Amino acid sequence: MYKMAVVMRTDIEMGKGKMCAQASHAVLDTYLEAVRIRPDYAVGWLAEGEKVVVLKVNSKEELMDLYNAAKKYLPAKLVVDAGRTQVEEGTVTCFGAGPAPEPEIDKVFSKLKLL
Amino acid sequence: MYKMAVVMRTDIEMGKGKMCAQASHAVLDTYLEAVRIRPDYAVGWLAEGEKVVVLKVNSKEELMDLYNAAKKYLPAKLVVDAGRTQVEEGTVTCFGAGPAPEPEIDKVFSKLKLL
Repeated sequence: MYKMAVVMRTDIEMGKGKMCAQASHAVLDTYLEAVRIRPDYAVGWLAEGEKVVVLKVNSKEELMDLYNAAKKYLPAKLVVDAGRTQVEEGTVTCFGAGPAPEPEIDKVFSKLKLL
Repeated sequence: MYKMAVVMRTDIEMGKGKMCAQASHAVLDTYLEAVRIRPDYAVGWLAEGEKVVVLKVNSKEELMDLYNAAKKYLPAKLVVDAGRTQVEEGTVTCFGAGPAPEPEIDKVFSKLKLL
């Protein structure tokens, strides 16, 4: 089964609605990247119902390390907030990675806890 | 400016990660619907940075009334959970509407509070 992961920072102040919007940007942007570089994965994931898992990290450093590891072999997109509300402009809030077969996602993210 | 709205139920038990995943499905599915029926809005919204506002309602009835009103003249997609975690299979969790110019979105959703 195909899965996409969203990795969200919890060390910055964001309300539930803000987090939902950031995760949405991650999923959409990563999906569009997948359409470009792994259309087979993108199509398969949509057909299976778009499984998404949302994980958390406690710092920008941890997020960037995981993002840099993921983007080597998965479609991945970083979300940088425009700073209209709640956080400063240019704040990295989360990223998406995938979709890919579950074992490929789990290989990178299995140590993270669910948000 | 173009905007998409996500309307989320708060009367069902969902953790933050679950809500983020549901909102992501709403945004992606509604974007894909917009590409089909209002590609001009879809392209404009992406180019402007994908503004998303996440709103809340307290019941399925309120959500369905708004969804039925919105879909008459906006791209709109309902999210029905597969029920793998947290909520029962077939639970309606949220919907997306738009993107559209902000006044068109506000016309339908201006009475709702931010999640």
